[in-house]
Amino acid sequence: MKTLIRNANAFLPSGKAEPVDIAIDGNKIVKVGKADESFKADVTIEAKGKMAVPGFVNAHTHASMTLLRSYADDMNLMDWLQNKIWPIEAKMKKNDIYWGAMLAGVEMIRTGTTTFADMYGDMDKVAEMSIESGMRSVLSRGIIGVAPNGEQAFEENKALFRDYNGAGDGRVTVMYGPHAPYTCPPDFLRRVAEQAKLDKAEVHIHLSETKGEVADCLRDHKVTPFGLMEETGILSCGVLAAHSVHVNDDDIALMKKYDVRVAHNPGSNMKLASGVAPVPKMLKAGVTVGLGTDGASSNNNLDMLEEVRLAALLHKVNELDPLAVPAAEALRMATVYGAKAVGVKNLGEIKEGELADIVLFDMSGAEWCPQFDLVSLLVYSASAHDVDTVIVDGKILMEKKELKTLDEEKILFEAREAAKRISA
Amino acid sequence: MKTLIRNANAFLPSGKAEPVDIAIDGNKIVKVGKADESFKADVTIEAKGKMAVPGFVNAHTHASMTLLRSYADDMNLMDWLQNKIWPIEAKMKKNDIYWGAMLAGVEMIRTGTTTFADMYGDMDKVAEMSIESGMRSVLSRGIIGVAPNGEQAFEENKALFRDYNGAGDGRVTVMYGPHAPYTCPPDFLRRVAEQAKLDKAEVHIHLSETKGEVADCLRDHKVTPFGLMEETGILSCGVLAAHSVHVNDDDIALMKKYDVRVAHNPGSNMKLASGVAPVPKMLKAGVTVGLGTDGASSNNNLDMLEEVRLAALLHKVNELDPLAVPAAEALRMATVYGAKAVGVKNLGEIKEGELADIVLFDMSGAEWCPQFDLVSLLVYSASAHDVDTVIVDGKILMEKKELKTLDEEKILFEAREAAKRISA
Repeated sequence: MKTLIRNANAFLPSGKAEPVDIAIDGNKIVKVGKADESFKADVTIEAKGKMAVPGFVNAHTHASMTLLRSYADDMNLMDWLQNKIWPIEAKMKKNDIYWGAMLAGVEMIRTGTTTFADMYGDMDKVAEMSIESGMRSVLSRGIIGVAPNGEQAFEENKALFRDYNGAGDGRVTVMYGPHAPYTCPPDFLRRVAEQAKLDKAEVHIHLSETKGEVADCLRDHKVTPFGLMEETGILSCGVLAAHSVHVNDDDIALMKKYDVRVAHNPGSNMKLASGVAPVPKMLKAGVTVGLGTDGASSNNNLDMLEEVRLAALLHKVNELDPLAVPAAEALRMATVYGAKAVGVKNLGEIKEGELADIVLFDMSGAEWCPQFDLVSLLVYSASAHDVDTVIVDGKILMEKKELKTLDEEKILFEAREAAKRISA
Repeated sequence: MKTLIRNANAFLPSGKAEPVDIAIDGNKIVKVGKADESFKADVTIEAKGKMAVPGFVNAHTHASMTLLRSYADDMNLMDWLQNKIWPIEAKMKKNDIYWGAMLAGVEMIRTGTTTFADMYGDMDKVAEMSIESGMRSVLSRGIIGVAPNGEQAFEENKALFRDYNGAGDGRVTVMYGPHAPYTCPPDFLRRVAEQAKLDKAEVHIHLSETKGEVADCLRDHKVTPFGLMEETGILSCGVLAAHSVHVNDDDIALMKKYDVRVAHNPGSNMKLASGVAPVPKMLKAGVTVGLGTDGASSNNNLDMLEEVRLAALLHKVNELDPLAVPAAEALRMATVYGAKAVGVKNLGEIKEGELADIVLFDMSGAEWCPQFDLVSLLVYSASAHDVDTVIVDGKILMEKKELKTLDEEKILFEAREAAKRISA
């Protein structure tokens, strides 16, 4: 199938938006610029007045937690986890995980996310969502090594890899998901690292999210969480590190040495008061930093444009430097850096040879007027509600705000029912 | 005219959202709860599945600067002002001011703002927008005392007061707008204070926005900007202080003593890297803190829900306290505290006797699902694009996303033309 997007204002690798045609053949972008006469499109999308952006990559989320949106907010972390989140999570069954993931799918497509990196339980249900919706995903079974079901979770992650790695026409990638250094003992992490290397799979893990985590790790293991990950062999698997808020220069050197990619979650870090990750410093050091929403219970949405804006704004005020994270750099964090972060090759830029994951923003609203600089408009002014069309792997998942692969009405109904069940 | 809003989930003074009917007679809310049988509505709005919120009060903006949206971003403050903003502002004529304000009017109504406090030049044109659109406004002529046109601007502010205070059926209030301590010498400020007292008008002024401003003021006047405002008599006029980022305990004591109201602009303070205002401390001290967007050239939109979210998130991470500014408190900053901040009485709450400025949010989207806590959903998850209906002074300005008082297509066209003219 061949698709031609005509007259789009595309965010290009240069960091600027330029008017171009984008030709798609199968799941690849084959031409960016003036379309060849010889290109016979099966579908033509007129994109005049629209901005084309590489599909957003949500580099760290827990899709099914969307079911817990607004269940518990404005609480201290341990009170929130122990008295609200963990008890309700214990009531979530496979069916709830599925509808939570489907609800997340609706929201992610509507807000321009085309790839998501997820960590949770019953991940076969999240894989099903990815396959059914047409989204791209990087899935890991969250493994709490110290929990009674630690071994079972590890087995489930192995099964997830066997059953789903490469599924959905190659859109699904499976990683291992040891939850964190404070929930997985070193020996357990060593076993996970061995298995990951055996499978040639990478690792998705929460690292250095809170001050307390780092202090405890130093107390118990005499090294930082990043140091411990080096010792256990996790870093040499290829790592997607979520949060990485409290990191020192040695940690950043380890990131460089092992090409650790960071999923920065500004919204979640702000809402949970975790702290501000040294993102400008990491970027300057050449570390790949993507963006994530984290779960909807600590965000409370899956809106990646909001994370782009927060990343651009938070680091400016934190460094007292209005140039800390410029608009184009923030947008790259949600696209090309995000793609690198989650380990999907040939993704995240609008250029020849890349996977055809493209989002069109409608620029007709007042918040896009006037149009001196489209990248600034997108990053600082626009809304994810301006997303009009979403293409993944060359396939249209949403067109003119209408979802093509998911039954939104049914999904919202089932999600509401599931939320009632688990909170009853 | 009598209007009945039925079955709304209203954000009430308790800080919770409850299902109620809201009866409006003329420009006042006459009943909140179950509607009386005897209330014969001319218009009935069915609001099942909608959340009713007091109209947002944008406590500090420069509406006509919406015309400069995306003209210059990601620059150091003085480079930005001297090389981009001031030169283009010098080219703005009355007609441009008008269309800039009209563009702001479209965006503000669409995003649920019903009252705005503005400071700029040619404010008669902004007053016209307020009168034509049906919005409520608190207007001041921005006066740069040290500029060649300082005296003229002062005269224009006097004329604005004479001509427009109380205009638009009382929806327009006029204040004096000495720009800042660093642009208005003490003697000039004394004259403004005298005039304001003569007119029984209040004062809208930028105070303690940047570290440099405070340092310069201490060097030149041996007092902080707030101290200088006490000396010049400005504080005893009744003051709406924009920004107030760099304030000490003595400044906060002065705010309390003179009931200074602060317009906190988290988005602008973050984007311009001004710093983080000590908002939780001010709130704890009993200072009234409203929220503002500042101008669209430093934000870059007029979306008050975004400011609510930023206020809730920024102070949590800044204080490393997830309870720093809870959801309901952030929402009050944009509504009832904002109304107090801009000095409009009987505004900002959904209760009997208040002015009927009400916004209905459509809760049908995925980001509102599931619905455990509507206040959390609005503050942490919803979008200003969910605004469905806007009522000011009992009159419908937008219904089912259709503007009733402004010609959006014409305004966007004229704004684009004006932007071309001034940037040519």
